[in-house]
Amino acid sequence: MSAYKSLKEECYEANMQLPALDLVVYTFGNVSAVDRQKGVFAIKPSGVPYETLKPEDIVIVDFDNEVVEGSMRPSSDTKTHAFLYKKWMNIGGISHTHATYSVAWAQAQRDVPIFGTTHADHLTSDIPCAPPMADELIAGDYEHMTGQQILDCFADKGLDPAEVEMVLIGNHGPFTWGKNAQKAVYNSKVLEELARMAYLTLQINPEAPRLKEALIKKHYERKHGAKAYYGQE
Amino acid sequence: MSAYKSLKEECYEANMQLPALDLVVYTFGNVSAVDRQKGVFAIKPSGVPYETLKPEDIVIVDFDNEVVEGSMRPSSDTKTHAFLYKKWMNIGGISHTHATYSVAWAQAQRDVPIFGTTHADHLTSDIPCAPPMADELIAGDYEHMTGQQILDCFADKGLDPAEVEMVLIGNHGPFTWGKNAQKAVYNSKVLEELARMAYLTLQINPEAPRLKEALIKKHYERKHGAKAYYGQE
Amino acid sequence: MSAYKSLKEECYEANMQLPALDLVVYTFGNVSAVDRQKGVFAIKPSGVPYETLKPEDIVIVDFDNEVVEGSMRPSSDTKTHAFLYKKWMNIGGISHTHATYSVAWAQAQRDVPIFGTTHADHLTSDIPCAPPMADELIAGDYEHMTGQQILDCFADKGLDPAEVEMVLIGNHGPFTWGKNAQKAVYNSKVLEELARMAYLTLQINPEAPRLKEALIKKHYERKHGAKAYYGQE
Amino acid sequence: MSAYKSLKEECYEANMQLPALDLVVYTFGNVSAVDRQKGVFAIKPSGVPYETLKPEDIVIVDFDNEVVEGSMRPSSDTKTHAFLYKKWMNIGGISHTHATYSVAWAQAQRDVPIFGTTHADHLTSDIPCAPPMADELIAGDYEHMTGQQILDCFADKGLDPAEVEMVLIGNHGPFTWGKNAQKAVYNSKVLEELARMAYLTLQINPEAPRLKEALIKKHYERKHGAKAYYGQE
Repeated sequence: MSAYKSLKEECYEANMQLPALDLVVYTFGNVSAVDRQKGVFAIKPSGVPYETLKPEDIVIVDFDNEVVEGSMRPSSDTKTHAFLYKKWMNIGGISHTHATYSVAWAQAQRDVPIFGTTHADHLTSDIPCAPPMADELIAGDYEHMTGQQILDCFADKGLDPAEVEMVLIGNHGPFTWGKNAQKAVYNSKVLEELARMAYLTLQINPEAPRLKEALIKKHYERKHGAKAYYGQE
Repeated sequence: MSAYKSLKEECYEANMQLPALDLVVYTFGNVSAVDRQKGVFAIKPSGVPYETLKPEDIVIVDFDNEVVEGSMRPSSDTKTHAFLYKKWMNIGGISHTHATYSVAWAQAQRDVPIFGTTHADHLTSDIPCAPPMADELIAGDYEHMTGQQILDCFADKGLDPAEVEMVLIGNHGPFTWGKNAQKAVYNSKVLEELARMAYLTLQINPEAPRLKEALIKKHYERKHGAKAYYGQE
Repeated sequence: MSAYKSLKEECYEANMQLPALDLVVYTFGNVSAVDRQKGVFAIKPSGVPYETLKPEDIVIVDFDNEVVEGSMRPSSDTKTHAFLYKKWMNIGGISHTHATYSVAWAQAQRDVPIFGTTHADHLTSDIPCAPPMADELIAGDYEHMTGQQILDCFADKGLDPAEVEMVLIGNHGPFTWGKNAQKAVYNSKVLEELARMAYLTLQINPEAPRLKEALIKKHYERKHGAKAYYGQE
Repeated sequence: MSAYKSLKEECYEANMQLPALDLVVYTFGNVSAVDRQKGVFAIKPSGVPYETLKPEDIVIVDFDNEVVEGSMRPSSDTKTHAFLYKKWMNIGGISHTHATYSVAWAQAQRDVPIFGTTHADHLTSDIPCAPPMADELIAGDYEHMTGQQILDCFADKGLDPAEVEMVLIGNHGPFTWGKNAQKAVYNSKVLEELARMAYLTLQINPEAPRLKEALIKKHYERKHGAKAYYGQE
C-alpha cells in the first residue's frame, strides 16, 4: 500500500471541491497538499477531468519537481506549487482555479479593493494582482517564475503570506493557499465571492470608498486577533 | 429534555433556509428566533458550517447576551440581535446574511431605490442603507452599536420597523426581520431579489425614475392595506 | 368529480414550470388556462407557494371574474387575465412572472430592442414596454385597467397579439400569452432570455445596432412563415 | 439494425451535453457528428426538445443535404453544417448554440479580445465575429451562405480552422467545431466561459490590454505545441 494514501486522499477531496463550488469547468484548476515531514506534495494530474478523477490518480512530487509516486504526469503548474512550498514553510495546501470573477480582475490587472466587512473578515488589504511577467522570464522556466512573480509581488507590497492567503496573477488567474488543502480551496471560494461583490459594488457606485481603517481592524481582529470571538475554540 | 426544543428547531430550520436560498456560503450569516414569554432567543452558533449544523447546536441567549442553554459560543453578531429584540417588541425573528447583491449595495453605500411593484409589494420606501459607524463606536461595543446604528438610521429617515423589515449596514451587509424567523429569512431573499433587480435597472437605464406614488400606494395596499386582497385569509 | 379537472391540471402543470424554469421565487407569478367552450379559465390561487400548490387548489373563474369553482381566492391579477381573454379571442393561456431581467427592463421603462436572430425567431419587433398607468386609473379598477393598458400599448404601436405574444408593463413586469398555458410559459422564459441577452449586448456595445430587416424577416419566416422549415410538421 | 447506430449515439450524447452544460434552453442549438468514410453526418432533428430527444430521432444526412436515414426533419441549420464538413476536411463535429454570453458578443458585433491565459490555452487570436450577411445572400440560400460567411471571415482574418475552432456569426450566435462532436461541444462551453470573462474584464477595466505576445505563445505551446506538457500522452 502507498505510504502517501492519506495525503492523496486529502488532495483528491480538495480537488473535487472545485467543481462542487462552481470554481472550475472541465480540467481547469488544480489543488495540492503537502507533507512537510516526507518532503513531498500531492497534486492533481494534468488534464484529467474531475468526473473521472480518482484518489489513486493523484501524483506525489518532491520540492525539486521529481515524481515520487504515480503513473500520470502532474499538473502543468506543478513548479509553481513546488516553488511556493519551498519558500513559504508554513503553508500546507495550494489551490489554483480559473474562477470567473477572479480571472476577470486578473485580466483587468487590478487589485480587488477592500470594500466591506466580508473582505475584512478574511484579510486587511486589497487582494493583490501581480503584474504580468517580463518577456524574458516567460520564455524561460515559466511555471517556476510564476512562483517568483508571486514572491516579488508580496515583497513589493509588503504583504505577509500568513495574513494574505491569496493572489491574482495578472492576465492569468488566482492562486490561494492555507494551512491545508481544504483551507486553500476555501480561500479560492472566498476570493471568488469577494471579487464578485467588488465588481458589483463598482457597477453600482464607481466612487465607492475603500472600507475605513477602524472597521478593517475590528472585523479582522474579531476573527483573527488575540481576543478573537468568532467561531468555536 | 430542553425547554427550548421547539424554539431551537424553528431557529435551525430558518438557518438552513439560507444556503438553500443561495443567500450564504460556508459559515456566513445567522438567523435567530425569539420567545418573548421566556425572555430568550435562539441563535446559530458562531462559525459552524451549515452542512454540519444540528438543531441541538443552536444556542439559547437572553436579552443581556448571557447564554442560557447550549455548549457552543453563539454567533459573533448576537449582541446586534439582542439589541433589536429589546428595542423592537413586535419582531419575532432576525436574519443576517452576506448575500451578494445586498452586500454590493451596502458596500456602495446607497439606498436601494424603489423602482417597481415587486418592491412596492413589500415596502413603500427605498431600502435604507445606514452610514458606516463612527470610529469611536467601532472601537467600543461594536455589535451592540450595530443595533444602535440601525435604530438611528430608522429614526433619521422616519421609518417604522413594522413597515420596513430590512436594512443595509453600510460596508457590511443586510439585516432583516419579521414576525418570526421564517419571515425574517423570506425578507432576506426578497431584499436580495430587489437589490439585483435595482442593480440591473440602473445598468439598463441610469436615469430610471423611482416608482410613482400612486403605484407605490396601490401595490402596498392590495397586499398589506385594510382592504388587502392578496393571498388567502 | 369536477368538470374542470383537466383544465385545472393543465393550469397546475404550467404554474409549476415557473419555479422549475427559475422565473419566480416564493409566490410571485401566476399562469392561467382558458376553456373557451365553457367560458371559464383556471388560475393560480393568490399567495400560495409553489412548493405546496396542488392541482385541486386551482380556481375556476368566468370572464366577469366570478369564481365558478374552488375554495381559495384567485390570483390578485385575475382581472387582467379575464380582460385579455375577453378581448383576444385566440389566446389560450396567460403567464405573469417577476423574472429578474424582464422586470429590470420594465423598471427601466424601455422596449427590449431586437438585436439578434434568437429574438427574430420569436417576434419581428422590439418587445414593447407599456408606459406606467395614469394616476386616476390606478386608483380605480387597477387590475382591469392593466389589461386596458396592454391593449392601448398594442394599439399605439400597431402590434398584433398573434405575432407579439409578450409585453412589459412599465415599473411592473412581464405578461406573456399563447395558444395554451404551456406556450404562455414558454414565452415567459424566452422573454427572460431575450431580456438578458439584450442587457449584455448593450453592456458590451452601447451602440449595438438593431438587427437588419432582411435578417428579421428571414428568421421569422423560417419558423413561422407559410414556407416555414423549422420544427416537425 | 441501422448502419449508423454508433454515429447517432455519438451525436445524441453530444447534443444532450448542451442543456447539461447550460448552453441552451428548449430546442435552441444543434450538434452534428460526421462519418467521413460513409460520407454522411448525424444531426439533431429540428425543433425537438432535449427532454424528449432519443438516439433514434437523430437524422443522417449527406453532404448535399439529402436525408439518408431518419423519419424526422433535420435541424434548420443543416446546410451550414454540410457546407463546413465539405470545405474543412479535418473536422469531425460541429456545435451551434444560443448560449447567453456568446450571443451577446455576436449581437454586439465585436470580436472577443484575448485578455488572458484561459483564452490562450485554447487559441492565440481574438474570437472572430463574422459581420452580418449582405441582404441579397440572406434572401437566397441562407443557411448555405452562413457557411460561406464563416469561410469568408476566416479568409479575411487569415485564420486556420485547425487552430481557431470557434466563430461568432454577427447578430446570430456561435458555431464551434473539433475533431469530433464531443470536442465541438467542449469548444462551445469554452467559448461561453471566455465570452463571459471578457465581458466582466471590460466592465472592471474598459482599458484592459490584450494579452502580451509572449504569454499567448507560451500558454498555447504548453498545451498544443510540439513540446506540449499539458495533459497526459
